[in-house]
Parts: sequence; C-alpha cells; structure tokens
Amino acid sequence: MTRLQAQDSDYAQRVKASFARQGAMQTLGAELIRLEPGAVDIVVDWAQGLTQQHGFLHAGMVSTALDSACGYAGLTLMPADAAVLTIEFKINLLAPAKGQRFRMEGRVLKPGRTITVTEGRAFAMDAGREKLIATMGCTLMCVQGRDLAD
Amino acid sequence: MTRLQAQDSDYAQRVKASFARQGAMQTLGAELIRLEPGAVDIVVDWAQGLTQQHGFLHAGMVSTALDSACGYAGLTLMPADAAVLTIEFKINLLAPAKGQRFRMEGRVLKPGRTITVTEGRAFAMDAGREKLIATMGCTLMCVQGRDLAD
Amino acid sequence: MTRLQAQDSDYAQRVKASFARQGAMQTLGAELIRLEPGAVDIVVDWAQGLTQQHGFLHAGMVSTALDSACGYAGLTLMPADAAVLTIEFKINLLAPAKGQRFRMEGRVLKPGRTITVTEGRAFAMDAGREKLIATMGCTLMCVQGRDLAD
Amino acid sequence: MTRLQAQDSDYAQRVKASFARQGAMQTLGAELIRLEPGAVDIVVDWAQGLTQQHGFLHAGMVSTALDSACGYAGLTLMPADAAVLTIEFKINLLAPAKGQRFRMEGRVLKPGRTITVTEGRAFAMDAGREKLIATMGCTLMCVQGRDLAD
Repeated sequence: MTRLQAQDSDYAQRVKASFARQGAMQTLGAELIRLEPGAVDIVVDWAQGLTQQHGFLHAGMVSTALDSACGYAGLTLMPADAAVLTIEFKINLLAPAKGQRFRMEGRVLKPGRTITVTEGRAFAMDAGREKLIATMGCTLMCVQGRDLAD
Repeated sequence: MTRLQAQDSDYAQRVKASFARQGAMQTLGAELIRLEPGAVDIVVDWAQGLTQQHGFLHAGMVSTALDSACGYAGLTLMPADAAVLTIEFKINLLAPAKGQRFRMEGRVLKPGRTITVTEGRAFAMDAGREKLIATMGCTLMCVQGRDLAD
Repeated sequence: MTRLQAQDSDYAQRVKASFARQGAMQTLGAELIRLEPGAVDIVVDWAQGLTQQHGFLHAGMVSTALDSACGYAGLTLMPADAAVLTIEFKINLLAPAKGQRFRMEGRVLKPGRTITVTEGRAFAMDAGREKLIATMGCTLMCVQGRDLAD
Repeated sequence: MTRLQAQDSDYAQRVKASFARQGAMQTLGAELIRLEPGAVDIVVDWAQGLTQQHGFLHAGMVSTALDSACGYAGLTLMPADAAVLTIEFKINLLAPAKGQRFRMEGRVLKPGRTITVTEGRAFAMDAGREKLIATMGCTLMCVQGRDLAD
C-alpha cells in the first residue's frame, strides 16, 4: 500500500470540527479514536436507541458510523476548502451486530481529484475480542466551490 | 408486476410489533404509513440528531429508514415464524437529503424461500413536492428455526 | 419522471460509433435495439461462449451488456466531446440467466455534470415471454479534456 | 485471518472441472493460476474481443473474471455435491483496465452454510508491475439438492 499524504496540514482539526457538527454522530455516541491521512476509526457503544428488532445494532446504524469513518478518511486527503459527499456505498453484513462496543474503520483505497474510493470494516468488540461483522465499499466525491445542496 | 400475496394473514400485526421493537426507528421518529404485502413506506422528519455536517439528513440515517422499509416489505411475505435479516444493501445518494420530511419506500422485487430481493427509494418532501434523493438495492435472508446470533 | 433531453443532437451517431468500437459487444453478438435520450436497450443471444458452468449466461456477461446499456444511456445526455466511464456498478441476480435471448435495459435515473446515476434491468426472453433476471445500479462519470488512462 | 479449510478433499478437481465448463472463461482465455481453500486467482490477457470503446478491458469482462474467481473461491469450501450461485456483486473501477495481462483474485471473507461472502481484486500487469484497478464484493449462495434453474 502506498503511504497516503495529506495536502492540508490542518486536516485533523478540519475533520474533528466537521465530525462535531454531525448530529448523527452525537446520536450514536460516536467517538473518533484514530485520525491519520487516509485512515479513520470510530467507536460506538451499544445503546437501545440504535437497535433492530432482535436487540442487535441496526444495520443502518452500523452504516452510519462506517459511512462517517469512510467519508472522513477521504476528507483527510482533500484540499482545505473541499467538502466531501458520499455518492454511494454498499455494505455486507457478515454477522449480527451483537456486542457491547463496535469499532468502525474507514480506509482510502484510491484517492482522486474528483472521486475517492474507500473501504470500511466494522468489528464487534466483546470480552476483549474483535469479530468482523460488516464490510463497506464507499465512493466519495470531493466538492469545491459549488453549492452542496444544488 | 405480479401481485404479491402474504402467506401469513397476520403479517401487518407481525410487522408492526417488530417495528415497535426497533430502538433505531424510535430514534428516527419513524412512522409506518403504508403496510401491504411486499410494500412498506416509512416517514421520518428532519431532526438535528440525524444530520451530517451540512445539516442534511446523514446518508446512514437515510439508509437506516430505507433498510427497515425494505426489510419489512420482505417480512410481509414470509411465514409467520420467520425472522428477516439484511445480508447486504447498496445505496446511491442522488441529491443531498435536504428537506423537512422524508418518505422511504421499500418494495419486494423478487420474493424467495431463502433470499428476497428488494428495492428502496427515498424522497425529500418540501412544500408539497417530492424529490427522489436515494435508491437502495437490498438483499434479505429469511431465517427459520436457527439462532439469529449464530 | 422528468423527460430527459440530449444536449448533443448527434447523440445517436456518437453512441453507435462508440458501441461499434467495443470489442466486447462484438464478442457478445450484442445489438442496440433502442437508443433515446437516457434510454438504451441491448439484446444478446445465448451462445456457448457466454456461459457459466450450468450452461446459463454468465453473470459477468449479463453485467457486460447491462454496463454498456447503462453507460450508453448516460452518454446520450452528455456533451459532444465527453467520454463516459463507469465508476461502479452493483448487480443482483434474481434468477439464473436461462433463455435463448436476453434484453438489457439501461436508464438514466439522475443525469449530472460530473456524476450520472443509472439503472439497468435484464430480461430473459423465452417463448415470447420476458422474465426479469437481474437489476443493476450503475454510477457513471462524465470526463472531458482529460486523459482517460490517467 | 482464520485459515480456511476445505470440507471436500477433491475441491481442486471439482473447481477445475467446473471452470472448464464455463464457456465464458474460454472466451476470456482465462487461466486458473491459484487454487486453494478460499482463494482463487485467474489471469486474463488483453484481447480486442474484450475491450470497451477506448481499447481498455471492458468493466464487464473484468467483472466476469472477478465473479468466477470469487465464485470458485467460495466453491472450494462447499460440500462435494453443492453448486454455487452468485446472488449479487458490486464492483468499483479504480482505474481504466489498461495493460497486457490482468490478475483477478477471489477471496472468501466469510464462509457460511447458505451464504458465503467474498472479495475480489483485479490488477493490471504491465512491465512487471501490478496496479490495482478494481475491487469487488460478491455474495454467493450454496445450493444443494434443488433445481438450479428454478
């Protein structure tokens, strides 16, 4: 793997500020625990408000944390004035999201001027062990100087 | 399109009870507004706790409602003792999720004994008009007589 | 659905010329049978050289025709000097591709300056009836004035 | 990664025989160069009959080889009398498929009694170097004792 480099030396500050503005991350009680060029990890604790009908983490909530991990992994590599938008993602649920705590990894596979391709992996943490429960492929667009809501 | 038929005449009651157990649907303030064999609609109002960094609905929260709509559309057609699990889904975000209210449609495209394929569409509702903001393809598995957490 | 309009009045000629350059379409014996702004249909006859191990059309060959249908549906709406690239696609195989002839539909769901989102459907034709065998979601990028191989 | 084990000691013979029956693999001139429990590599040489309009390998042809690599990686782990079907796959094209030879890797991420999740990666080989050009997520179903064409 080629080592990825940030263009903007303030990437960490920029990602943290954006993360703090995501109401969804507060609802998830999500915490940024790793933040490097092209790599972001987020942890989420189990909570009743995040569950599906069997009491496991809802696949959509796993997706929410993975999408933010992937999106911010991409943002670390973008110019200072850029915004990141998710174009699409796909998630495979390998096992029910059963556990007390979950770690979501977002990694940039291929950075690009317009399109950045990322991968995510979600792990359930239980009794000190991690189990892979989901994988995501996520495509991002780097937007500069345009109205995001257009 | 072939008209889809429920095997279990109590499907509506079964889906409503399962929906009520999803902590995630309560967090979203989601409401079931359509429930027919193979077709489920859910509405979600904008709320700060569901946002991404620009104040739009987070793609993951759109996914959460779409995944539930698709999963319950599938469950309407399954036997009375079946559980439904999402194997995978993919979402394309066509436009930022900007609006006051959102309607998510889940539709069964192909029911099956083991695998059911569904499609979802999300619409932003603003000033009486609907705009397509996302499409989902979602694959479900019908599970009977096995430990879901296995 | 909003009616889609071509920017380039020569779109049909442009698509036909590009289609003729695809060695893969010749290998499939593929034929363009519909070509309108935002909508392209391609037919492919069963052939031994396109099969998987049970004698049905290989999922990859179904994808090849669907990807071309989606890509050319997108290209009909792009400027005269644009090239189209597939960023990603996802295919759900609903039933084995069993039949003598197959029709693949590509439709533009959302055209865009940079990103165009399309959908495809593949049908097996047997004894005058059509059966839906696959659905595709496909994201395209419109490239102008850049080296495609970069 | 847990080491994966074949249930059927004749898995290699079984995969080779199935591969030889795929007309599509002959059309691609595809060769099996690695065959282990949960891991299959296939190589394909560039040929005019596999191209898109710019002379690169058609994304659908890349998919065809990746789908076979993933499917056979899954089949290595299935019982002797099982058939493998692709339920769905998604491919991200990271770079144009430009090169003289291509190597496609299929790897089992999570084997299962009914559902097996795999990942694929495609590399362009040029002047002794490999470049990642595509990634695939592919879901397989193991079918026993049922009519495949049903």
